[in-house]
Amino acid sequence: MTDTHALIRDLRKENGSKIVLLVGDGLGGLPLAPGGKTELETAKTPNLDALAQRGTLGLSTPVLPGIAPGSGPGHLGLFGYDPLQFRIGRGVLEALGIDFALGPNDVAIRGNFCTIDAAGLITDRRAGRIGSDIGAKLCTKLDTIKIPGVEVFVRPVKEYRLVIVFRGEGLGGNVEDTDPQATGVAPLTAVARTDCSKKTAEIANEFLRQAREILKNDAPANFLTLRGIDKLPGIPTFQEVYGLRAGAIAVYPMYRGLARLVSMDVLDAGQTLSDQMARLEAAWNDYDFFFIHFKYTDSTGEDGNFAAKVQRTEELDSCIPRITALKPDVIIVTGDHSTPAKMKSHSWHPVPTLLAADTCRFDSSTEFGESACARGGLGHFEAKYLMMLAMAHAGRFDKYGA
Amino acid sequence: MTDTHALIRDLRKENGSKIVLLVGDGLGGLPLAPGGKTELETAKTPNLDALAQRGTLGLSTPVLPGIAPGSGPGHLGLFGYDPLQFRIGRGVLEALGIDFALGPNDVAIRGNFCTIDAAGLITDRRAGRIGSDIGAKLCTKLDTIKIPGVEVFVRPVKEYRLVIVFRGEGLGGNVEDTDPQATGVAPLTAVARTDCSKKTAEIANEFLRQAREILKNDAPANFLTLRGIDKLPGIPTFQEVYGLRAGAIAVYPMYRGLARLVSMDVLDAGQTLSDQMARLEAAWNDYDFFFIHFKYTDSTGEDGNFAAKVQRTEELDSCIPRITALKPDVIIVTGDHSTPAKMKSHSWHPVPTLLAADTCRFDSSTEFGESACARGGLGHFEAKYLMMLAMAHAGRFDKYGA
Repeated sequence: MTDTHALIRDLRKENGSKIVLLVGDGLGGLPLAPGGKTELETAKTPNLDALAQRGTLGLSTPVLPGIAPGSGPGHLGLFGYDPLQFRIGRGVLEALGIDFALGPNDVAIRGNFCTIDAAGLITDRRAGRIGSDIGAKLCTKLDTIKIPGVEVFVRPVKEYRLVIVFRGEGLGGNVEDTDPQATGVAPLTAVARTDCSKKTAEIANEFLRQAREILKNDAPANFLTLRGIDKLPGIPTFQEVYGLRAGAIAVYPMYRGLARLVSMDVLDAGQTLSDQMARLEAAWNDYDFFFIHFKYTDSTGEDGNFAAKVQRTEELDSCIPRITALKPDVIIVTGDHSTPAKMKSHSWHPVPTLLAADTCRFDSSTEFGESACARGGLGHFEAKYLMMLAMAHAGRFDKYGA
Repeated sequence: MTDTHALIRDLRKENGSKIVLLVGDGLGGLPLAPGGKTELETAKTPNLDALAQRGTLGLSTPVLPGIAPGSGPGHLGLFGYDPLQFRIGRGVLEALGIDFALGPNDVAIRGNFCTIDAAGLITDRRAGRIGSDIGAKLCTKLDTIKIPGVEVFVRPVKEYRLVIVFRGEGLGGNVEDTDPQATGVAPLTAVARTDCSKKTAEIANEFLRQAREILKNDAPANFLTLRGIDKLPGIPTFQEVYGLRAGAIAVYPMYRGLARLVSMDVLDAGQTLSDQMARLEAAWNDYDFFFIHFKYTDSTGEDGNFAAKVQRTEELDSCIPRITALKPDVIIVTGDHSTPAKMKSHSWHPVPTLLAADTCRFDSSTEFGESACARGGLGHFEAKYLMMLAMAHAGRFDKYGA
């Protein structure tokens, strides 16, 4: 496999240009019936259409054909990190999603409260789906656990879901789940897959021993299971790879976490798209690259609400003039994956992508939509190459070879 | 990584068919303004348009999305050698560019005359950009240098640029540059990066010691620095890979050198496109494959002269009837990269490509241009696969697997 990051580091240069990557989460969609229009095609998007006319369109494949990615691999691809090479464990993603600042010595774990009976067998893997308030209280109790040689952090996520972090030297991240994925059986003991994770497994088992004692009277949440035990992946920073000072403007913690994973500066994004635009304007001189994340094209798609996704797409369109007024050298509008309302889920369909720069080859597109993108001048490409196109159009690459 | 060369060797067969690869250097372009036409689209190209109607179009990516290649990697890709796998050092390319016949025991070096002061510090890295006549005289003096155990060749390139070749057994090509890339400091000593290049470094330092003495009264060119020290890459010959007897018809030394790098026969190309066509006709029965190189679509692009590039493209078009009259089984017209006049440089934009053969699937193209190619039946593909398409359309591949 070609090490594209090494190539990028060899070729990149500094020229003061600015790149904006605007991600409409789950932007791609599907028509509700054959011959119909997608959400993006249905939406009135005069500003995106104008950009399409001076830019170039294409379809990006987040991972590989047929593969629907989660938010982690979806964004890693957009940031130019091969999502099949750089994998993010479930525990790490869960910690990023609650804005927990993970460090290199941390092992992150996704916990699930569960119900066990007198014999210690699991009767409910989700503890009767307890409310978030109860979950939070129990996490506060568990956060008092002390284990010699490590710091222990326990944080609530939502309902029966929590995050546990062990912080200490010499902790490997390669430990089996303790969730047996079944009821009527006992939770598993934590088992290390490698020698250098043995200490982590021992700590996890000590944590579970103390937790069982602490939670014994808290049925239905009288125990917990551990999943996705992992450390931060060894991942080069965005600045190391591209030489770009990058600012992330994302409202949701998960996306701030993904930006932090590649060491972008995470800026205060406020609560609305308008807040985000104000932050972009205020920080314009401080960064070379801006990642702006808009969640609601995805969440409305997940809800199966076609009309709401259309409306959120129109909202996304409305912010374009504030971006173009700043005169970025390159502006890219795309998604981390498709979330068709028809499917109520992330999908594998390639993602409509628009790149506008003075060096664009005109492709006769008059509007931004899936059909236009399928015929666009960027063709069909893997999302992991998008940043290379951005760097090229920003004039930030030297020629390869003589 | 799939070894496509091994696959090609397994599947190839001989059938007496003929392939012509016509390369318009830097063929791809850009419109000067959004909505405009590129150089190729502006040019009147009735012969290429007729070929497009009976052939198939596509866009080829020379290296990877966003990467603008030099002539070396651009041509290696067209010849079916992965330009990220086979890398050509600066010294090697410079030697190829002056028609120096490099052999497997040769280490080639790009030299720059420079000016040093009484303390030995560099005051001008390009020796005041001395004229080519002065550079040539100084090279004649340096060519007298004798070093036991190796042959030394010193040849002028242009102005302050020269090529040095050490020929001998056991010379590695992995030595650091001696150009410190700065003034006010002394030139560096040649340092081997590997044990098997230590002898080369010693010879380079002895060469520099003698050169300093010879040039001491020749200010501003009173010393030189060494860059891009390298040997020929270990590269299978075109005949070994494809079983094709290949003849190269290129006017410019660099492209003759690139053809020689993969062991094509380099034919006398004369000075004009008409001379090249005459050579093609004369040599038609002697080869299975012809590489014809036309430089001026690139040089006019580099000059930023849109109109001149249009005119040169029309000149390229005018040679097509003499090629088709020979009834090649496959004719390909493409470029090694794009050189938009708007950018005055090589660019990363994918390259318009036309392949005509009796086995083409019709793609409704009526003219040869970037927009038509973006919608063409060959799709967007990596240049390194072009030769496999050529072999297939020439009927020179057996089926893979049963």
